[in-house]
Amino acid sequence: MPIALTMGEPAGVGAEISLKAWHRLRETPCRFFLMHDLAWVERTASVLGLPTKAIQQPGEAEHVFADALPVLQMVVPAAITAGVPDVLNAHAVIESIRRCVEFVGSGQASALVTNPIQKSTLYAAGFVFPGHTEFLEHLAGQPFRSTMMIACPNLRVVPVTVHQSLRSAIAGLTTEKIVATALATAQAVVRDFGVLRPRLAIAGLNPHAGEDGSLGREEIDIIEPAVRELVSRGICATGPWPPDTLFTDRARRQYDVAICMYHDQALIPLKTLDVDGGVNVTLGLPFVRTSPDHGTALNLAGQGLADPGSLVAAIRMAADIVANRNATTGTRC
Amino acid sequence: MPIALTMGEPAGVGAEISLKAWHRLRETPCRFFLMHDLAWVERTASVLGLPTKAIQQPGEAEHVFADALPVLQMVVPAAITAGVPDVLNAHAVIESIRRCVEFVGSGQASALVTNPIQKSTLYAAGFVFPGHTEFLEHLAGQPFRSTMMIACPNLRVVPVTVHQSLRSAIAGLTTEKIVATALATAQAVVRDFGVLRPRLAIAGLNPHAGEDGSLGREEIDIIEPAVRELVSRGICATGPWPPDTLFTDRARRQYDVAICMYHDQALIPLKTLDVDGGVNVTLGLPFVRTSPDHGTALNLAGQGLADPGSLVAAIRMAADIVANRNATTGTRC
Repeated sequence: MPIALTMGEPAGVGAEISLKAWHRLRETPCRFFLMHDLAWVERTASVLGLPTKAIQQPGEAEHVFADALPVLQMVVPAAITAGVPDVLNAHAVIESIRRCVEFVGSGQASALVTNPIQKSTLYAAGFVFPGHTEFLEHLAGQPFRSTMMIACPNLRVVPVTVHQSLRSAIAGLTTEKIVATALATAQAVVRDFGVLRPRLAIAGLNPHAGEDGSLGREEIDIIEPAVRELVSRGICATGPWPPDTLFTDRARRQYDVAICMYHDQALIPLKTLDVDGGVNVTLGLPFVRTSPDHGTALNLAGQGLADPGSLVAAIRMAADIVANRNATTGTRC
Repeated sequence: MPIALTMGEPAGVGAEISLKAWHRLRETPCRFFLMHDLAWVERTASVLGLPTKAIQQPGEAEHVFADALPVLQMVVPAAITAGVPDVLNAHAVIESIRRCVEFVGSGQASALVTNPIQKSTLYAAGFVFPGHTEFLEHLAGQPFRSTMMIACPNLRVVPVTVHQSLRSAIAGLTTEKIVATALATAQAVVRDFGVLRPRLAIAGLNPHAGEDGSLGREEIDIIEPAVRELVSRGICATGPWPPDTLFTDRARRQYDVAICMYHDQALIPLKTLDVDGGVNVTLGLPFVRTSPDHGTALNLAGQGLADPGSLVAAIRMAADIVANRNATTGTRC
């Protein structure tokens, strides 16, 4: 079954990078379709000199893909202007996500890859979810709580705290949060990445991981108890590690995922290593979802300059996760 | 004039990495000597199969260097055991620093490169300074306040706050500290690195640099005023930049130094990029001082396994800084 790509913000670079991703991946086993406004995708395609073909249902993507990007129509009511989001099109953006999730739920698509959305425009149209992820949790049903992983070929990171000030991230750090995040990660890594016994490296919070309390007590009071709890539950967890040496070549060979205490502790090393290949993976949902690790790039839209690297990586990773979930055995680490 | 290398903790890897650094640099224009216990250096050298030669004063290093590591005697009273610091030898460690600074002060040496010390051992012997840097400020005389830069071939970083908990680093961040650190850095970079108009990138503190206050107000209340103040003083300063994208290949080409808000914001990207080549440079002293960016490595001492990469980089950088200070013109950025 093909992977479903959502529209994302139509005034952004979604159509352009989807077309470029098709061009890069057209001779690989990856198969996907884009749910978007057909007229706009065709206009973007003609500027780029790339082919598109309308399909009526996801299953047709298989036959079309070798020759053109398959596009499933999702009409937008207002004319699209590159770089200028229109609140009148917000409903179509949301509907594209909802229908793609339905395709995955009904088995017509194998995974979901979301193009970037412009949150402020969706909010203005009455969208009540903080972002993509919460909306997907809602569509998946109540019991699902997801965990954000960002991955590149050299590194997988999972931040325990995400979009909040650094001060509040520290204030809100608890043993329970670390344990819950690490357990969800370990479970997902077994299923999605085929690592039978994932090795989790738990980062410290303070310089030198606190140097036995002289540079902060969070390691002693919060993080060490979490590591002990994880080990007692049979998880291969180590730490807390000094953050500055946790992401060297040598250190990265010792673990499968780094559990990080705050956003930039996770994102600085990942983006320093590989700015274009970072992929956002939502762990813990009943379906496979990845997304590129960048925004709508309104400033680049319509110029043909957008780099499809992260979307290509997101599509490849979604395909790999689907293959791992379908495999009966994983690879032993 | 040769560069002076201090003893550092004699039970650590100082003698070993100094010998290996000589081996790597013996055919370059770098000239240096080690001030250490001669018998111990000879014993270490014989295990490594490398030559040493005693000198009576720094000026002799020039003639000796092509054939052997020049060693200026600093006897230690207690027998040295690799991996086991002895408080009886602390005075010799301190004296080695003091005398090397004197050599630089009197023009007999061109720069100071310090081997790592074991602070706890020095404290036990009554050493009253928190570390190397404060002792060097003291030796330089009252008015000198230094600034720590860590540099590798791809990146220079200066943290505004250093060895304190992340929580207290945030609580203690002020516009004045950022401005003072950036001014000292700009001045030093002109003199020491030959960059006539250094471009300083000022990092944000919060994820996405606070997203206009929704993820923390430190950018608005503390960092933006610092950038404005720096610009008004004629400094080429920009920011606050989102921390996670500040250290990519593309971003690093846009600045000469990143001014970072906390220890790991500076050290994570540096060590991720180049774990072995990081050099600690003390800016703002009247003499040139660099040091390797690692500790005494007591666990490795005496096994011949220590990597001299960071010490080699520290010696090379000290030589470059001396050359830049001696040059009448810098290179324009």
